[in-house]
Amino acid sequence: MEPIEWLGDRIRMVDQTKLPLELVYIETADYLEVANAIRTLQVRGAPAIGVAAAYGIVLGALGICENEQSLFHRELEAIYCVFASTRPTAVNLFKTVQRMRAVACEKDAVSTKKALQSEAARIHKDEEIATECLGRLGADLVDRDFVILTHCNAGALATTGYGTALGVIAAAHRQGKQISVFATETRPLLQGARLTAWELMQENIPVTLITDSMVGHFLKQGKIDCVIVGADRIAANGDVANKIGTYTIAVLANENNVPFYVAAPLSTIDLSLPCGSAIPIEERNPEEVTSIQGNRIAPEGVSVANPSFDVTPHNYVKAIITEKGVAREPYSQNLATFFDGVL
Amino acid sequence: MEPIEWLGDRIRMVDQTKLPLELVYIETADYLEVANAIRTLQVRGAPAIGVAAAYGIVLGALGICENEQSLFHRELEAIYCVFASTRPTAVNLFKTVQRMRAVACEKDAVSTKKALQSEAARIHKDEEIATECLGRLGADLVDRDFVILTHCNAGALATTGYGTALGVIAAAHRQGKQISVFATETRPLLQGARLTAWELMQENIPVTLITDSMVGHFLKQGKIDCVIVGADRIAANGDVANKIGTYTIAVLANENNVPFYVAAPLSTIDLSLPCGSAIPIEERNPEEVTSIQGNRIAPEGVSVANPSFDVTPHNYVKAIITEKGVAREPYSQNLATFFDGVL
Repeated sequence: MEPIEWLGDRIRMVDQTKLPLELVYIETADYLEVANAIRTLQVRGAPAIGVAAAYGIVLGALGICENEQSLFHRELEAIYCVFASTRPTAVNLFKTVQRMRAVACEKDAVSTKKALQSEAARIHKDEEIATECLGRLGADLVDRDFVILTHCNAGALATTGYGTALGVIAAAHRQGKQISVFATETRPLLQGARLTAWELMQENIPVTLITDSMVGHFLKQGKIDCVIVGADRIAANGDVANKIGTYTIAVLANENNVPFYVAAPLSTIDLSLPCGSAIPIEERNPEEVTSIQGNRIAPEGVSVANPSFDVTPHNYVKAIITEKGVAREPYSQNLATFFDGVL
Repeated sequence: MEPIEWLGDRIRMVDQTKLPLELVYIETADYLEVANAIRTLQVRGAPAIGVAAAYGIVLGALGICENEQSLFHRELEAIYCVFASTRPTAVNLFKTVQRMRAVACEKDAVSTKKALQSEAARIHKDEEIATECLGRLGADLVDRDFVILTHCNAGALATTGYGTALGVIAAAHRQGKQISVFATETRPLLQGARLTAWELMQENIPVTLITDSMVGHFLKQGKIDCVIVGADRIAANGDVANKIGTYTIAVLANENNVPFYVAAPLSTIDLSLPCGSAIPIEERNPEEVTSIQGNRIAPEGVSVANPSFDVTPHNYVKAIITEKGVAREPYSQNLATFFDGVL
């Protein structure tokens, strides 16, 4: 199963809203369809939407008929804009636009199209390598027989590579460490129940599905040895924006002396933001809360809040696992060192 | 809307599994059907299942044809047993059996049937009075414009009276305090989304529905002034068994200096248990987690844990609101004083 694939003139993506009941692919050469897939979470996960956006920009560029350089670039800017406005929280999207814009800069139409294609492939490859490395590095934090709690989905689907949180878990499993996983279902969109449980079962890693409300109970009972989650954006001081519910788990892990780890590639770290309060939090459609898979569960007319993410302050985070190493406090110093030579 | 009503020779109960889409009543003279309604959560909430069991025992007794005293009581014991084994956590069920057994003791068949009917009506009335009193007492803890977070459903449906947590909220609302409520949806069975949101809307109390995973986020943002929840059983030291997710909320409330209150009648307090670790926690059907209203949301064959309750240690509980007064630490001393003359 390849979550995102470039087929030379079009993109093929797993429709993550259909799993686990159906494994359906979206195949398209229309960049607006790619943007829509990001917006509707058919493709989701910070690194994966970075990669999908990159190929989406390529598709947009290939579709521009204008050859005059400045007019071509004006049309291209509009395409960047479409992708940058799909979702606000995951920084990978904006880093993709930044990287694509950088390689396109001051080139004619034909060269730009070529450069964008190469850069999209590089972004894709970079994510694969990053998650493979961070999985290996993170596995050192996981002891034999560990029971690991994870939230939402930070697996291959979310990253196009080996996964971040699930990448660490899979690496530990491959090392024969006999680990097992508690996966939260992750309301409202049930990425844990639908995607994480499915991915772990595919890899024969024992998984127990729980509702989000059960995390405290199992942490207090001493059933969990560590928590590993992914991230959508990490500020320079180590504050972590991730799926709503992550902060709740971090506080409960700390209260029960269970280490709370975040696994994320450097592409998810945003050194331009000093702290997490500056990270924009996406508010999504109330229907995600009032209906489940099209079935109404709440009274008509009820008010709803539906923030998709929350911010976990760095003091709850025991370590941040990246492809360049495992960072610990003080994050403001230690995360920055990973970017030497990258920035 | 009367959640439970005695019609002289049969019971009428709101089927809580059908709300808010339909307001359907179950009307039956068959005690096994009442026991089944408790087991399947058609009637739920600690005080409400105490009342339903009382009328169920009356129906069972009325159906016994045997008139010889000792044989009659042998059949009656089997009926107590049916109700005592419906659900393990809420203590009201066992207190009901205790009270019914006490009034039936050493009476002939005809007198026992009469005594059981009177006692069931008394249990029902006691719950009504208790929730009315505790609502009034609890409202003193709620200031003007307070935003209150509640979990699961501890309203009229759960108590047959005015509600425990929602009784306090409704009393504050009737005092004109301009309060509003955040209600968690309460997975797996969505009592918050289905019942609490519905009850509050009926009373024109502003309510915002959130998923269970959002509590930390809103507590951290300073959006919540206090938490009020009900209880299924409270041990002598103030440890509180309540709907799964309650402990999680209590820890997060404490972390963010938001007072965490429990509202419960004395019928929910079990002085026979020194602490919460002795409270049996019901493990329910995995399908409650893997399906929502009959729709599969998780891969076939996935392992599931489904504890229905958790235990919040007393040190997280700022006060316990009862009909006899508002108890604070040390609970082992202060709860016991409420029972002087009751035991």
